[in-house]
Amino acid sequence: MLHHFDDGSRCELSSPTAMPQAGGFLWNRRMMIQVTCRGYATAQFMQPEPAKYAHAPNLEAKTFMQPEQAYYAHHPGRFVYVKDEDSGKLFSVPYEPVRAPVDAFRFTVGKHELGWTVEHLGLRVEMSLSLPTDDVVELWELRVTNLSGRARRISVVPYFPIGYMSWMNQSAEWRADLGGIVASSVTPYQKVADHFKNLHLKDKTYFLCERMPDAWEARQAAFEGEGGLHAPSALQAEQLAGGDARYETPAACVQYRLSLEPGDGKTLRFLFGPALDDAEIARTRQTYLGKAGFAAARAAYADYIDRGRGCLRIQTPDPDLDRFVNHWLPRQVFYHGDVNRLSTDPQTRNYLQDNLGMAYIAPAVTRSALLLALSQQHANGSMPDGILIVEGAELKYINQVPHTDHCVWLPVCLQAYLDETADYALLSEQVGELSVAERLDAAMAWLHQDRDARGLSFIAQGDWCDPMNMVGYKGRGVSGWLTVAAAYAMKLWAGICADAGRTDAATRWRAAARDLNDAANQHLWDGDWFARGITDDGVVFGVKADTAGRIYLNPQSWALLGGAASDEQRRKMLAAIDAQLETPHGVAMFNPPYPGMRDDVGRVTQKHPGSAENGAVYNHAAAFYIHALYDIGDADRAYSALRRMIPGPDDADLLQRGQLPVFIPNYYRGAHQQYPRTAGRSSQLFNTGTAAWAYRSVIEGLCGLRGHAEGLLVKPQLPSGWSHLNAEREFRGARFHLNVRRTGTAKVLLNGQPLPDGLVRRIEAGREYRLEVEIA
Amino acid sequence: MLHHFDDGSRCELSSPTAMPQAGGFLWNRRMMIQVTCRGYATAQFMQPEPAKYAHAPNLEAKTFMQPEQAYYAHHPGRFVYVKDEDSGKLFSVPYEPVRAPVDAFRFTVGKHELGWTVEHLGLRVEMSLSLPTDDVVELWELRVTNLSGRARRISVVPYFPIGYMSWMNQSAEWRADLGGIVASSVTPYQKVADHFKNLHLKDKTYFLCERMPDAWEARQAAFEGEGGLHAPSALQAEQLAGGDARYETPAACVQYRLSLEPGDGKTLRFLFGPALDDAEIARTRQTYLGKAGFAAARAAYADYIDRGRGCLRIQTPDPDLDRFVNHWLPRQVFYHGDVNRLSTDPQTRNYLQDNLGMAYIAPAVTRSALLLALSQQHANGSMPDGILIVEGAELKYINQVPHTDHCVWLPVCLQAYLDETADYALLSEQVGELSVAERLDAAMAWLHQDRDARGLSFIAQGDWCDPMNMVGYKGRGVSGWLTVAAAYAMKLWAGICADAGRTDAATRWRAAARDLNDAANQHLWDGDWFARGITDDGVVFGVKADTAGRIYLNPQSWALLGGAASDEQRRKMLAAIDAQLETPHGVAMFNPPYPGMRDDVGRVTQKHPGSAENGAVYNHAAAFYIHALYDIGDADRAYSALRRMIPGPDDADLLQRGQLPVFIPNYYRGAHQQYPRTAGRSSQLFNTGTAAWAYRSVIEGLCGLRGHAEGLLVKPQLPSGWSHLNAEREFRGARFHLNVRRTGTAKVLLNGQPLPDGLVRRIEAGREYRLEVEIA
Repeated sequence: MLHHFDDGSRCELSSPTAMPQAGGFLWNRRMMIQVTCRGYATAQFMQPEPAKYAHAPNLEAKTFMQPEQAYYAHHPGRFVYVKDEDSGKLFSVPYEPVRAPVDAFRFTVGKHELGWTVEHLGLRVEMSLSLPTDDVVELWELRVTNLSGRARRISVVPYFPIGYMSWMNQSAEWRADLGGIVASSVTPYQKVADHFKNLHLKDKTYFLCERMPDAWEARQAAFEGEGGLHAPSALQAEQLAGGDARYETPAACVQYRLSLEPGDGKTLRFLFGPALDDAEIARTRQTYLGKAGFAAARAAYADYIDRGRGCLRIQTPDPDLDRFVNHWLPRQVFYHGDVNRLSTDPQTRNYLQDNLGMAYIAPAVTRSALLLALSQQHANGSMPDGILIVEGAELKYINQVPHTDHCVWLPVCLQAYLDETADYALLSEQVGELSVAERLDAAMAWLHQDRDARGLSFIAQGDWCDPMNMVGYKGRGVSGWLTVAAAYAMKLWAGICADAGRTDAATRWRAAARDLNDAANQHLWDGDWFARGITDDGVVFGVKADTAGRIYLNPQSWALLGGAASDEQRRKMLAAIDAQLETPHGVAMFNPPYPGMRDDVGRVTQKHPGSAENGAVYNHAAAFYIHALYDIGDADRAYSALRRMIPGPDDADLLQRGQLPVFIPNYYRGAHQQYPRTAGRSSQLFNTGTAAWAYRSVIEGLCGLRGHAEGLLVKPQLPSGWSHLNAEREFRGARFHLNVRRTGTAKVLLNGQPLPDGLVRRIEAGREYRLEVEIA
Repeated sequence: MLHHFDDGSRCELSSPTAMPQAGGFLWNRRMMIQVTCRGYATAQFMQPEPAKYAHAPNLEAKTFMQPEQAYYAHHPGRFVYVKDEDSGKLFSVPYEPVRAPVDAFRFTVGKHELGWTVEHLGLRVEMSLSLPTDDVVELWELRVTNLSGRARRISVVPYFPIGYMSWMNQSAEWRADLGGIVASSVTPYQKVADHFKNLHLKDKTYFLCERMPDAWEARQAAFEGEGGLHAPSALQAEQLAGGDARYETPAACVQYRLSLEPGDGKTLRFLFGPALDDAEIARTRQTYLGKAGFAAARAAYADYIDRGRGCLRIQTPDPDLDRFVNHWLPRQVFYHGDVNRLSTDPQTRNYLQDNLGMAYIAPAVTRSALLLALSQQHANGSMPDGILIVEGAELKYINQVPHTDHCVWLPVCLQAYLDETADYALLSEQVGELSVAERLDAAMAWLHQDRDARGLSFIAQGDWCDPMNMVGYKGRGVSGWLTVAAAYAMKLWAGICADAGRTDAATRWRAAARDLNDAANQHLWDGDWFARGITDDGVVFGVKADTAGRIYLNPQSWALLGGAASDEQRRKMLAAIDAQLETPHGVAMFNPPYPGMRDDVGRVTQKHPGSAENGAVYNHAAAFYIHALYDIGDADRAYSALRRMIPGPDDADLLQRGQLPVFIPNYYRGAHQQYPRTAGRSSQLFNTGTAAWAYRSVIEGLCGLRGHAEGLLVKPQLPSGWSHLNAEREFRGARFHLNVRRTGTAKVLLNGQPLPDGLVRRIEAGREYRLEVEIA
């Protein structure tokens, strides 16, 4: 049912029923749209806060995306009804709302475009969606072809529901002057001050037609009638009746009555999007609505997406991995780094990790992000909970809840950036009164002092794991993960200082890291793994004595990275992870899931077992583990965990996960023992720090092409079942061609010459390098 | 299509398609439910803030009720599928989601119960909903009868969608121990403090079965399948599959496989509602689920509703009016007064007016409400924007926006209470440091000083008309309505003071009222009517020069009441209202509607023309006008406006309004000239101060049976087309039998004796009085 083509940069689904929520997403600098194979769509744009221009018929709560939950008949979508005017038969493209058992169905997810081809009643309907780079507008193209060998009279009726826009004011009508249906509304407000904030909001939604339709309807209820969306009453008549919506739920429906000779085809183009006013609608039409406008926008958008192609192309014994790494993974990394998840106040840890990913795509972006983040550092060295990236933005939602880990991500992100660029000059850049290096010192010093009498790091209302919000809200609880993660951050920073000639600082932070690791070993080692923390009331948790949340992955991964674990501890931890956290769909964040409320842990225990953080395969945590496994040279465990992040390789796995292999979701459902039916199911949410880490692990771990102060360190780590790997890697302006063969002996050749320490030095931009690596 | 029976206390609709949103509502002390004839339902309960236990499949915004907008396939509802197991044919009761063209349909709205009778496929299905008085639970009874004269095998499948409960945790399963489906969730929170607030929330939803079903399904998606709600896939199989919902959208579906001999009938009973825990569910089952439990609850609920029967029964030439006044209007008044619109912080003006209505039903409630409101008076004499009626409640939403009219409603409410009770002792009650009378003085004094240099009342961010929020937000704008309304309030208070022997105060407030009326005449008289106000920037509005919002009803009504208008002004104002505000569906609040934003007026100008306050027939304002018309003795205009508040009298009017005559909605759509299609349509919202005023106008105006310090003043005001009116009125414990005849001469007889001044004095509780009135 899944078919890859174009070298894997596109994939195709041939049935809408088996994976009903499988979809793809497109984004540009100001909007994103997630569309399912059946036609349901969720689109958001920035003004500057996220907003919608197509709504559900009831008022939706302002909340984050929740694409895991099933859609329903009246969900926003982009649908086209096709009716045979002679037989009266009806179907809809892509699939909803009619749900006709069509003769052929293909849903194609490309990097720049989503498309469907549906054949039914002797007609082929091709439908595609693309976006421009900088404007908030959907470009829809529809081609209908007569395959039946006889003349046909058909109606083609795009139905784009606009939904409940506002309780203050909503209406819609056909606008002959603009050539489409325009819905208007006023964003509701009660306080005067909000009125002034709302004045610039794009409260109009337009649907513009290149070719003028024969009839139209702007009122949802009049279109649907008693027939229901699966058989709208309005389509029983010859023509849509042309009703305005007046404080009624708007929809954009237009009808084309087409006569098609055998073999004939007709192409229709539409624009759908939000606008401030008529002038903006007219401008948008002028710019885009036509063959040339679509072509120009598509070309420009392809260029834009291509800027996110990343620095690596691989060819391995695992073609699914190749496709994913060569096309989809850098695209997902680019999405995060270029638009910061379409938020105005990204969480500091997300912002830094998303920009860590950009080091492999556009390192200058990483540099700017580090400087911006540091410019918002508090005077005491701590980092705020979110970074304000738009003027007038405010810390909202979770960013009003104090977390203690944000400083950790500074050296983590910086290390990746320096590995990729060797831009040590950054350390001397002034950010306000202090240099970057001084700010890192201050951040590490804050982490070092924010500990209890035992030397363990306070957790406040959460660390990387937001919903562990009640471990330390009284001010005493500590985080096992943060203690070893802070040690790792200090170790990284010490290494950077050493490379940059800041010898005293290097010594200082190495000692500080030891402090933290010693404290972790003294208070948190549970015999076979590290505990997750100690609550406000002194209860150690994430330990053998617990029946739920017995072992957590993160404290182990970061203890491996930061040096807290001895060789013996390492062996015990890996064995415990194998035994308790491994699932067919990845490595769980902790296990067993909490069956219900545990007040001294927090929100995580109240989430549904297997949903989000409660015992799920939370890919972000799994990605840290993979990074740690490559760090300690455990290539088999690393590859195995990495591979399970990508849906597939077989249909059974795809069906269980319900997602196409075009992104890594933030989690797969866990609770494998308790709820096997739902275990493995994708969250469908593509916002996740996982992408950056997974890409880094492929580049630096699997391919072993990792940056170094002096050049490129070559040390591929193939899983034991693999005999070869080819890769092409751009690095500091040069291009490296890597060819790895398993020969039984270990050897690295650079342009045919032995390279005993595996470090390529004195790299010249513009040059091509050939790396031949033999492995045991 | 509409049929009244049982003396008008029930009415019946015979088609679900012509008035799709027509519905009824039931409430008790802790919940309310609005159900449409098609089966859609919106239910809320208090804990103490309003909450839902059945949700839409997406996350709904927390907002006020908006029943004007059309429902849609996946909206919450209470549906029962019926399937013929031999033919495979399917329909659903009441109507949704299958929408089958059934053989017979009846939707019956009673005062204590809603019911449907549907006949199709040779089966009769009777379904009814009732509530208990003090618990939050729906009592559903279903009776299926075989009318076909042959043995039948059928499945009866109640489908009660529960919807998207929470992004943190939602699940549902069959609970054999409780005998039903129980859905569980955790209310989402991010801040620790909210967790503790949420601990007492009823996060479970249960559906309990008296008779154990043959099969069940708890997962919405599994029930619906690809078939859609109009033809659920699960009903294609022999039996529901029995799937749990695990972080999936829950639904409660149970299947009864019934064999019915000819003429056979089976009765099923169900409970549906929210609960804190299993123990509460078990208790609720124990109390209610059975024939006896239902019967007891119904009897108790009928007693409860009967406590709101009011003090009047009429018999006039207008049977629609009789039915409405004898059954529905006091019920609506009682709903408002007994449960305060299910809010914890009712707006002060709403709270006082809703309790004004209670003076005619349960005056002791009015008394307590006045005392509670006064206990929250500010030290400077002003009243807060909302009255906190539950411990821990806070001023929310609109109650955080400063309005200047709240003091006006104190004497208005008090006058009605004293007229009904003559309880002048209330004036001496101490509320904190001050007596009630002193608090009224302070309130009037605050109103008197809160004026500009011209002597006009400041409007701040609104008066009675909330969305006129930008006239005076800079602190300078004034309200024409409030100026004359404050004069009326002072006039009323002066009269009460005089009756109570507070002569100096009476003199003081009469003079103060004159001040205000003089200022209004000097600055706001526009030649034919009073202006609505003057903006912060000195622009007078609601005047001839305006093309929108040219004339407002309220300033005229209250100038008539408060004495600002001379006889000549009165004639001009009435003529202007007749010419510019009259519509077939009532008297508009202002006209013409604003076509768009006018920044110096505010939110009202941004509402859709004809929606809510923008040019609609806003019944609350129309009710003030009716009160004023009776006050000046204009019986014809008053009756005409009053009559149009009630949907009907003919089918065309019912269809246009889309509402049954069982309550007065807060508005009918206006913009009669601009949007004739939607003009007259009901908002479907039964929360409105209109009810109290309409009831008062019928009692004191139309029937002319108004309380007085010394007794009952008799002065019926029949419209000129009426020849007679009979009424029965309870008053101060006595019962009055009124018989009015148009004879050409004016005369009042009390128990056969002439009563020249029309004032019945020395009324004795427990006695019956006969009033014979002849009118010219």
